[in-house]
Order: sequence, then C-alpha cells, then structure tokens
Amino acid sequence: MHTLSGPNPDDPDGPDVTDGPDVTDITDPADPRVDDFRDLNSVDRRPDLPGGKGLVIAEGVLVVQRMLASRFTPRAFLGTDRRLTELRADLAAVDAPFYRADAEVMAEVVGFHLNRGVLASAARPTELTVPQVLDGARTVAVLEGVNDHENLGSIFRNAAGLGVDAVIFGSGCADPLYRRAVRVSMGHALLVPYARARHWPADLRLLRDNGFQLLAMTPNPKAETLAAVMPRLAAQKVAVLVGAEGPGLAESTMRAADVRVRIPMSRGTDSLNVATAAALAFYERSRPSG
Amino acid sequence: MHTLSGPNPDDPDGPDVTDGPDVTDITDPADPRVDDFRDLNSVDRRPDLPGGKGLVIAEGVLVVQRMLASRFTPRAFLGTDRRLTELRADLAAVDAPFYRADAEVMAEVVGFHLNRGVLASAARPTELTVPQVLDGARTVAVLEGVNDHENLGSIFRNAAGLGVDAVIFGSGCADPLYRRAVRVSMGHALLVPYARARHWPADLRLLRDNGFQLLAMTPNPKAETLAAVMPRLAAQKVAVLVGAEGPGLAESTMRAADVRVRIPMSRGTDSLNVATAAALAFYERSRPSG
Repeated sequence: MHTLSGPNPDDPDGPDVTDGPDVTDITDPADPRVDDFRDLNSVDRRPDLPGGKGLVIAEGVLVVQRMLASRFTPRAFLGTDRRLTELRADLAAVDAPFYRADAEVMAEVVGFHLNRGVLASAARPTELTVPQVLDGARTVAVLEGVNDHENLGSIFRNAAGLGVDAVIFGSGCADPLYRRAVRVSMGHALLVPYARARHWPADLRLLRDNGFQLLAMTPNPKAETLAAVMPRLAAQKVAVLVGAEGPGLAESTMRAADVRVRIPMSRGTDSLNVATAAALAFYERSRPSG
Repeated sequence: MHTLSGPNPDDPDGPDVTDGPDVTDITDPADPRVDDFRDLNSVDRRPDLPGGKGLVIAEGVLVVQRMLASRFTPRAFLGTDRRLTELRADLAAVDAPFYRADAEVMAEVVGFHLNRGVLASAARPTELTVPQVLDGARTVAVLEGVNDHENLGSIFRNAAGLGVDAVIFGSGCADPLYRRAVRVSMGHALLVPYARARHWPADLRLLRDNGFQLLAMTPNPKAETLAAVMPRLAAQKVAVLVGAEGPGLAESTMRAADVRVRIPMSRGTDSLNVATAAALAFYERSRPSG
C-alpha cells in the first residue's frame, strides 16, 4: 500500500494536469480508511444513522462529476484505476483522498458488485430553506407523499432537464439524498436546490407570497388540461404540485392550490407514474409556444 | 385440501355472482399444481425456457384484471383469499383454476414474499406481425435497443395512457412479457399491441408504405422540437422512433426517418430517461392544440 501525491508528471500517458487528489491504493477490504463506503446496502436499510442522516454517496463517473459541481463537498473517493483516469481532470482541484482498489476489493468493501467503478462520499450540508430556494426561481415542483426513491430521483432528473428551478417537499416524501435517489437522478438531486416545508400545507403561503401560481395535478376529468393552463401563466411564476401515485394530493393541499390541472388520458387507463406526470407538466411549462 | 366449484350461494357475505373459477386450497408449497408460479426469480434469470419463451405472469389485482381483458388467456391463478374476493366478479366467466393459499405458502412457492397477493399465468399466444399492429393505427412507438425491462414496461404504460396504438420492436429490445416489464407496465404490455420487426431497419418501409411519418428522437440540438413538428403532422399517421439511453438510435435508423425531433433541454443536462422522452413525444402527439 503506497501513497502517491497526484499523477506522475513523467508518465507520457497521463492526462495533462498539474495537480490532483492524493491517491492511496487499498488492497485490504477491511482497511478503515474506506469505511465511508462499507456495506452500503446495510446502510441503505438504516438511512438515519446515529449522528445525522448518514453520508451522501455518489456512484459512477457522471454522478461523481455532478457532486463535484454541487454544494456537496466530497470527503473521499473509492474507485478503480480506470475511473481515476477518467476523473483526473475533474479531480485536479480536489484534496479529498482517492482510494484506488480493484473491482474485487471494492465489491468486498461495499458488499456487492458495483459496476459503476467509482464512489464518492460527502457529508450533508445544512439544508436550504423554502425562501432560499424560491429566491430567483420561476418554476418549482412541490411534492407531497412521494416516498419512492426511484420516483424521487426521476423527478429531480426531469426537473433538471426541463427547466425547473427548485423542488419543495411537503409531507410524506422520501429522502432525496438516499443513494438510489441520487443515482436515478443522475446526480441532479445534488444540483437542483430543494427545501422541506416546515408547516404543511400552510407553507404553500410562502409560495403564494412570492408570486407563485399553485397548480395542483389531478386525474379529475373536470380539471383543466395542462395545455390550457400553462400558456396563460407563461409570464407568471408557477409551482407544480404533485402527489403520490394512487392517493394523489391531499384534499387540503388541493384546496390551497389556485388551479387544478390534468393530463388528458386515454380511456381505460388510470394514471401515469408520478415522475412521468411531473415531467409532462415541466415540459408544458417550458414548451415554446406555437 | 378441497375443491369448491364457485362461491357458496348460501354465503350471505359472498359477492353476487352465479359462477366463478374452480377454487382449490393449496397448503403444501411443493404441490405440483402451482408449478406455473414456482421459483419466479430463477425463472426470470432464464426467460428462454425449453419449449418456448416461458409463461407470462401477471402480478396483483389490477394487472390480473388487465390480463383478463387481454388476448392472453390465464391458465391458472395463485392468490390469497382476500385477492380472490376482490377478483370474484372478474373471474365469473373464467374456467382456469384458482389456487388459494396463504401468504406464507405463496412465498414458499414463488421463492420470495409477494406483497401483491395474487398471480396469474398464461401461455404466450402467437405474436402479432407488424402489418397486423399497424392496421387501423394512427400513432405507434418504434423502439430500438431498449433492453431494460423497467423502461420497456414504462413505455407501455405511457403508450396506453397517452393514446399510442401500437409498439414496434426494432433490434436489441428486451422481452415485454418478462414479469418485471409486465408489472411496471401496469399490465399494459398485455393490452397495447406490439410486433417485432423481422428486418431492421428495413421494415421501417412497412410503416412508410402504410402512410406513417417517421420521427426519430435525438438529443441533437439541430433537430426540430417536438412542439414544432407534431402539430404540422396532426392529420397524418406518426411513428415515434426512440433508441436506448446513451447510444440513442443507430445512424442507419436515423437516416431512414423522415424528420429528427428533439426535446428542448436545459443547459447542463444531457438527456432524459428513454421512457420519459417517449412520454413527452406521445404527449405532444395527443396534445390538444391551442
């Protein structure tokens, strides 16, 4: 086990960088230096670890790059030499240690075979507040009862791709920093600002006070369609409220909204996946008119 | 173990039906009569069983109901008494056996705890041909390289909800009748007609000969937007071509298309999930104008 300080400048195959992370080779899976990445599946079953909410884990080159671009500061990396090479340029200004291991050692550390080849860990920074994430935002998503990590991750990915500025959590939502949510979000759970409402649904007032029109998504056929509502709100701030599949938004939340909107559905079908429904609302919001 | 022929007409709590399935109680998990449902996870790892492509399995009340409404004929059911009660009316005209078991016996049969409480099995009927599924269709989805069962299932669900008449498989797609695909599709993989192209991408000619305009989805920023293209094709038949996340459509497929279309994306994001991208195209196709 030896420690290198950055890449070897004499290596003709090395990338053209002048600095980089401290690289330490790990050959013993029991090495305590990689404890951030130990038994990830077990950690997943207890996301509320003593002393906080556990660590945020980024998986794969793309998500690690997004963590590096986010307000989350990596405290350690674990990855193969191949992934280290791919990430060299991104890691130039990073001083957290990179623990280099082969795939077998990595699998023993994390507890399963990880085909993305690289992980980064970060502590959870202080959460943003609702007023903080609303500042400067024109379009926000407001989630209620979205307790499935894949759906949550998908919503962040869709929000990032379709121009949503922030996500607000009402009651009953899962943790967007859970490993699977971060992975499904393609790292956008680390980049799209989010905040939790403290009083629900009373905090919807904070949105209204900031000039947001509140649109509640519903399968109710009496609601107006997205295509009817969004264009007339083009000049206004908009909050899209979505509830969990099945129950949908609570009646008290519905009543707090300014307008109820629906997606036109084929006969014989009930509903779309919540992340898909949200994506259609985000799409209609950002759709160029005409 | 005893066999009942339909519900007891003297049971005052029984549903108001006059016929129903043969109900057989199963208390021994090794009972060969429930072999259709044995070790489903192992079967999943070998979807190409000897003698065919294996059985189609529907999970949960809603998906079983959709199987009953489909061209798939159930050959057996395995479920709890509670689910049998929920399905009584749907099963009135069905003569396949219903094997009733408690949750523990079911778990031993299928090899894991199944919280949906009911399963149905069906043989695979003869697959439809491309000309068969195009007959009468106005909007079809054409998939290439979509080899993820969850994405495939989501595409069927989105197709059903957003007015797509049929799905055509090009090369490299996974099996839409795989258990997980059927489950994620909410059973719509059994209801939305689909067919496999035999010659790819040459069979795209079958679509063109049937009057379809071929729209290839691409992240290429030079392509026209969905919102620009779809409205001008409102009177025509449309085929939406989507490729796998990452590689996208093959260049030869792109060349065979009439027009390349894109979803306007926020800067700094790469792409959406393939099922989400398809949903946006389906939505734009069915979107009421103005």
